[in-house]
Amino acid sequence: MEKETARIEAFSDGVFAIAITLLILEIKVPTADNDLAGQLLRQWPSYVAFVISFAFIGIMWINHHRLFTHIRRSNNTLMILNLALLLGVTAVPYPAAVLAKHLGRGGQRTAAILYNGTYFVIAVIFNALWRYCASRNGHLLGQDVDLATTRRITFQYAFGPVFYLLCIALAWVSVPASLLLNLALAIFFALPPSTTERFIGKRGPASV
Amino acid sequence: MEKETARIEAFSDGVFAIAITLLILEIKVPTADNDLAGQLLRQWPSYVAFVISFAFIGIMWINHHRLFTHIRRSNNTLMILNLALLLGVTAVPYPAAVLAKHLGRGGQRTAAILYNGTYFVIAVIFNALWRYCASRNGHLLGQDVDLATTRRITFQYAFGPVFYLLCIALAWVSVPASLLLNLALAIFFALPPSTTERFIGKRGPASV
Amino acid sequence: MEKETARIEAFSDGVFAIAITLLILEIKVPTADNDLAGQLLRQWPSYVAFVISFAFIGIMWINHHRLFTHIRRSNNTLMILNLALLLGVTAVPYPAAVLAKHLGRGGQRTAAILYNGTYFVIAVIFNALWRYCASRNGHLLGQDVDLATTRRITFQYAFGPVFYLLCIALAWVSVPASLLLNLALAIFFALPPSTTERFIGKRGPASV
Amino acid sequence: MEKETARIEAFSDGVFAIAITLLILEIKVPTADNDLAGQLLRQWPSYVAFVISFAFIGIMWINHHRLFTHIRRSNNTLMILNLALLLGVTAVPYPAAVLAKHLGRGGQRTAAILYNGTYFVIAVIFNALWRYCASRNGHLLGQDVDLATTRRITFQYAFGPVFYLLCIALAWVSVPASLLLNLALAIFFALPPSTTERFIGKRGPASV
Repeated sequence: MEKETARIEAFSDGVFAIAITLLILEIKVPTADNDLAGQLLRQWPSYVAFVISFAFIGIMWINHHRLFTHIRRSNNTLMILNLALLLGVTAVPYPAAVLAKHLGRGGQRTAAILYNGTYFVIAVIFNALWRYCASRNGHLLGQDVDLATTRRITFQYAFGPVFYLLCIALAWVSVPASLLLNLALAIFFALPPSTTERFIGKRGPASV
Repeated sequence: MEKETARIEAFSDGVFAIAITLLILEIKVPTADNDLAGQLLRQWPSYVAFVISFAFIGIMWINHHRLFTHIRRSNNTLMILNLALLLGVTAVPYPAAVLAKHLGRGGQRTAAILYNGTYFVIAVIFNALWRYCASRNGHLLGQDVDLATTRRITFQYAFGPVFYLLCIALAWVSVPASLLLNLALAIFFALPPSTTERFIGKRGPASV
Repeated sequence: MEKETARIEAFSDGVFAIAITLLILEIKVPTADNDLAGQLLRQWPSYVAFVISFAFIGIMWINHHRLFTHIRRSNNTLMILNLALLLGVTAVPYPAAVLAKHLGRGGQRTAAILYNGTYFVIAVIFNALWRYCASRNGHLLGQDVDLATTRRITFQYAFGPVFYLLCIALAWVSVPASLLLNLALAIFFALPPSTTERFIGKRGPASV
Repeated sequence: MEKETARIEAFSDGVFAIAITLLILEIKVPTADNDLAGQLLRQWPSYVAFVISFAFIGIMWINHHRLFTHIRRSNNTLMILNLALLLGVTAVPYPAAVLAKHLGRGGQRTAAILYNGTYFVIAVIFNALWRYCASRNGHLLGQDVDLATTRRITFQYAFGPVFYLLCIALAWVSVPASLLLNLALAIFFALPPSTTERFIGKRGPASV
């Protein structure tokens, strides 16, 4: 059974690694001969989209990794949920490219909504995956994972969908603000659960 | 010998992971400045092709994974059959892109036939691979795999080529219907063999 | 030290898996609305280049794999030689695309020479890598690898560069013939060393 | 804890393998029918950028590998530093493509500065990662790593940022010279630390 999880992790690692590396292909090379420096600078929207997307996928990988140190058993539902999560992750280069193309131009609000909306969906699936594993007394978790740890993790990840909704809403007011919040969220999820708990306050919800 | 299979699995996992992640590259980014939302919506054929193809490769991976929990020994023929299977899997982004480009337009029937035809060929190779391993009293399977399990698996996978042929035939009548059946097949193969058996009826063919 | 080889193999597997999966990206999707079937058929040069290149990389992977069941120790020179081999393998999608673009047109001879030339260089590096490991009484090989096995492998792989040179020469006379020989070579190298030896005759050269 | 590092290594290996394999996609296939040989030769800047970038990523991988034979423990900071390193590595295909496009033309100085600048940033992060692991008596290193080894490694890698700065400066005087130094650096870092120490002189700085 342990081995089962090992191959899910290996496959997921592969998908994360490829999705994060494909992001660079969306930055187009300037072709005009004169003023290359100026052309490179005018591509700032591509760099912004690249860095935020890289941070998101990279830190999503760290968190996927973190969850699977607790998940020990596997079943069909977990595989499907994990596949749904990977569907979201592999899709990221597309909204990232749409954002890069339209940032600072007419369609930037639509692009930012699509971009943050993708992350919202991924965050929802991520929560569903964890909650499924943690349900029925943590039926897919290791024996050493106590209830307090489970609750702490459930509590931290619950912030994801809420805040990405906020990013979507913010995009109506200010696209740069919504992207800044998006980046701040990546940094938030890069912190280990214990740190974020101290930051937010000790009490999570009582029920898993 | 066990190790032999390990490296085949690792290589196959890599190919599956890359093929599934490359699918997104086929969705082109809209470039016109105005009405981005409308442009994004008009790209629905790309999204349909992306989701069905992702489901197919993802669930093909789950099934590959499932087979290799039973396959313990390796030889040259298995490696060649596995390579033929991977040839089919890596090819998927191409018919998927053809489908995305022509769905809802003149060439959609041809595109759907090419698309389902690719899956038919992959399903045939998948069956050949399994039947080869299971032949001669399961000469490449683990000792713990009993005849009943072998038959059950042989029985379930035999549906693949038959139903993908049906998808091809359906494409002559209705392209959307053939794609819906295609997606339904992916869901069918996502279920564990025991469930599908209960669904279809307990008796598979008597011979492996 | 064993572990050292493990990570080289994992990295190489990754590169092989990616290079083989990228080949499909070089087949361009026909965009004109009418006569899709005709357009697809006219892309036969792309399919030919795809299948031959897939066979080459796939079977090169099998052989890489086969060598590393014998190679147990690692050092800096091996890593550099392996990196040189991977440089060749990652380059394959480019000559394959050049061939696909020009097959059946004016530049096909040049394209076929470039294509076979790439394989010639890869085959030379492959031989160098093996001979280095096998040199000084097999200083990087496992203790269980006897001299007879070493010689047999050395003997089989020595055919590679010679025959790819022949492919290059054949391209001057007939491009299809050179590609057929290329494909035949892939099949030849897919056979295990013992079979090919029986095929060619029992005696390899006496010295490693 | 050991396992923790294993998955970081596997993920990093994946990213390195993909980034190094994507480089070939930046070489565009000549499409004109006549004088294919001439067209291929005129693409020399693409080949130069491909080979130097391949050497850089490949040898960066060898060194990453070398470091992680010493790094045994993992924590959040290491994961973030490693992610920052991978951000740099995945970015390489972009400056490589910019260089390939502009080498021998008007923007080549700017392109060479961007190219070497990317490597400078990667080298700085690489040093930061190692120094972090080695700090506080090597708190993330294995028990068997003695102070002398640590210092030797710290000493060798400190050359990286300095020499890539020199490459940037050289690009103002001569672009070919800066690329040659860049390639020479890759070769320098391909040597094991003991060799380079002998080459440079036995004494590194006394403090880690």
